[in-house]
Amino acid sequence: MTALVRDLTDDQARTALPCKWGEVDPDVLPAWVAEMDYAIAEPVVEALQRAVAAGMTGYPTARVGGPLGAAYAAFAARQFGHDVDPDRVVPTVDVTAGVRFALEVLAPAGGLVFPVPGYSPQLAMAEITGRERLDLTLDPDAARAELDLDHLDRLLADGARVLLLTQPHNPWGRAFTRAELEGVRDVVLRRGGFVVSDEIHAPLVLDGREHVSYLDVEGTAEHAVALVSASKAFGIAGLRCAQLVTASDRLHQALVSAPAARNESWSVLAVEASVAAYTHGDAWLEALRRRLADQRDLLERLLAARLPLARLRPVEATYLAWVDLRAYGHDDPAAVALERGRVRLAPGHDYHPGLPGHVRLNFATSAARLTEIVRRLEVALG
Amino acid sequence: MTALVRDLTDDQARTALPCKWGEVDPDVLPAWVAEMDYAIAEPVVEALQRAVAAGMTGYPTARVGGPLGAAYAAFAARQFGHDVDPDRVVPTVDVTAGVRFALEVLAPAGGLVFPVPGYSPQLAMAEITGRERLDLTLDPDAARAELDLDHLDRLLADGARVLLLTQPHNPWGRAFTRAELEGVRDVVLRRGGFVVSDEIHAPLVLDGREHVSYLDVEGTAEHAVALVSASKAFGIAGLRCAQLVTASDRLHQALVSAPAARNESWSVLAVEASVAAYTHGDAWLEALRRRLADQRDLLERLLAARLPLARLRPVEATYLAWVDLRAYGHDDPAAVALERGRVRLAPGHDYHPGLPGHVRLNFATSAARLTEIVRRLEVALG
Repeated sequence: MTALVRDLTDDQARTALPCKWGEVDPDVLPAWVAEMDYAIAEPVVEALQRAVAAGMTGYPTARVGGPLGAAYAAFAARQFGHDVDPDRVVPTVDVTAGVRFALEVLAPAGGLVFPVPGYSPQLAMAEITGRERLDLTLDPDAARAELDLDHLDRLLADGARVLLLTQPHNPWGRAFTRAELEGVRDVVLRRGGFVVSDEIHAPLVLDGREHVSYLDVEGTAEHAVALVSASKAFGIAGLRCAQLVTASDRLHQALVSAPAARNESWSVLAVEASVAAYTHGDAWLEALRRRLADQRDLLERLLAARLPLARLRPVEATYLAWVDLRAYGHDDPAAVALERGRVRLAPGHDYHPGLPGHVRLNFATSAARLTEIVRRLEVALG
Repeated sequence: MTALVRDLTDDQARTALPCKWGEVDPDVLPAWVAEMDYAIAEPVVEALQRAVAAGMTGYPTARVGGPLGAAYAAFAARQFGHDVDPDRVVPTVDVTAGVRFALEVLAPAGGLVFPVPGYSPQLAMAEITGRERLDLTLDPDAARAELDLDHLDRLLADGARVLLLTQPHNPWGRAFTRAELEGVRDVVLRRGGFVVSDEIHAPLVLDGREHVSYLDVEGTAEHAVALVSASKAFGIAGLRCAQLVTASDRLHQALVSAPAARNESWSVLAVEASVAAYTHGDAWLEALRRRLADQRDLLERLLAARLPLARLRPVEATYLAWVDLRAYGHDDPAAVALERGRVRLAPGHDYHPGLPGHVRLNFATSAARLTEIVRRLEVALG
């Protein structure tokens, strides 16, 4: 089954991934932006080919529900055991734009709590939506990456109103458990807060662990919205469609009655690709998860052998490793890796401003490339 | 040459245009949303097919300039005689989102002047960007649709700071002349204002008239940005890519240094389609303009014969006619047309709140459908 996931050659990757491979020099191995060096699933390619052959380039329907809602609801039921109302699945262009939209039309005014390190473009989300950003900072020396509920409680008690949750977490690599999410819910309910839950990596929870949507936690319906997408798991982030999911009529109505100009930019081809991925992608996705777990295991072995002072917490989800390289003495190891090793990593300080010595490493590539990446890092940093 | 523009059958249109044709009952003729019932140009289809075959579904490059900038600059030079710096062409997801982005990061705080009737989603743009909307209202009885420069001057003198220009204008059907735009510039310069110029219909100026970008008017570089796109002229609005064009280093730097989360959602496939349209679409576009002029002439003849009290100003650009049906005595003729005639038009009050008796009619369809549309309107309204 793993054979379903096909590695792209360098030339194929340069065409398929204009950002990841196109924004580096030809001698650089890219392990930075969150895209996979794998061919996309056949049912997704076929859906796009059919749509293009039919000249499907007009506006997508703005009607809610329909094939996209039905496809996502069925996928969530099969993959997560999560009961989603297909008529409460609202399209949006991408997850970060959807987070902004949700903050603008659903979330109460007030400070935005953001777990740090966090997805770098979303560090600006508080500023963009006119809020104060309050960092829920993970201690870089903590053995396990956990949400500090006491700190969250203090922030909400002191006037913050909204938590921007990332579940599973990028770059922490965590899939928060139901018990952890119940802890979040208890604090949020006590303080009257709101949760915007970015669940873009939901299908990429590894090792048979369960993905729990924050909306699948009892008692969250009236204070939360989830952002989901086929984009990350199926390698179609450049096509542009994500979905907002709510479990409350009040919140759903607020989304669909907002002015169109706040939320109308998703792509018609991305809808087709997403429906195909959600409907016909399970076998490929299962093979992908096994492949990613293999890559993660390989990364752990390679680091242990070649960069033994690197510190890596267990990666439970995503294909992104948050690597502590402080022991090698470089403030910006990503810059050193690029200059001396010709490997492009994502600098840790983009995710945790002011934190030295960390990188985010994307291991969704071939075993050969990953081996070469770590070999180069050893030369550059060691 | 006109044979290059191929009419879609009803079945083809239902697949290609999920909004225009999919959001009406099967017995309804759609003449509402601004999409054309024509097959898209071959070079655009081929570019999409090549991209899909190569699995090009990753993030587009965020690098400015490159093939998209070069393609647009060459297109603007050939089509409009407008000299655009390819390195100052910044991608964005669509024109309305780009208008918002420009208002957020380029335009000074203060009231937004909006010519009314105006493109309905943009009526909300002032509210969305936290500004007062000040309508520059066209007198429905005016013989010619002209910008009232004295009124604009008073609004800017009284504290408005920004004009959201639509050039060519939808739904006025005007292509403003260089002299008219120089008049706008003089007022804006006198009052220290800013202009966001939505030029989405620029390639659809008919009868050999010239399209003048507001940025092509001398002395506008430091106070204006233009929004352009291949989307409307080439029938690819559902793919999602537009471009912001500036003629000033200061404004360009402000665009490219804004947080990515404000502007990162354009689609990789739309970039490919846009480059193909701009580069290889001239012959098709020329045929399209002739076809649209024929359709407009047909509409004029049909209305004169069947709804002689309908009032239609000259349509110099776009494929959208603003039709004054007040003489037929219906406050909401679009609702009457849908109910009694099974024709969906865009209600005039969506473009000019409070104005009764007007509709916007999309004539970019087959001659047979347009004939049937007017026949049904005669039955419904007459």
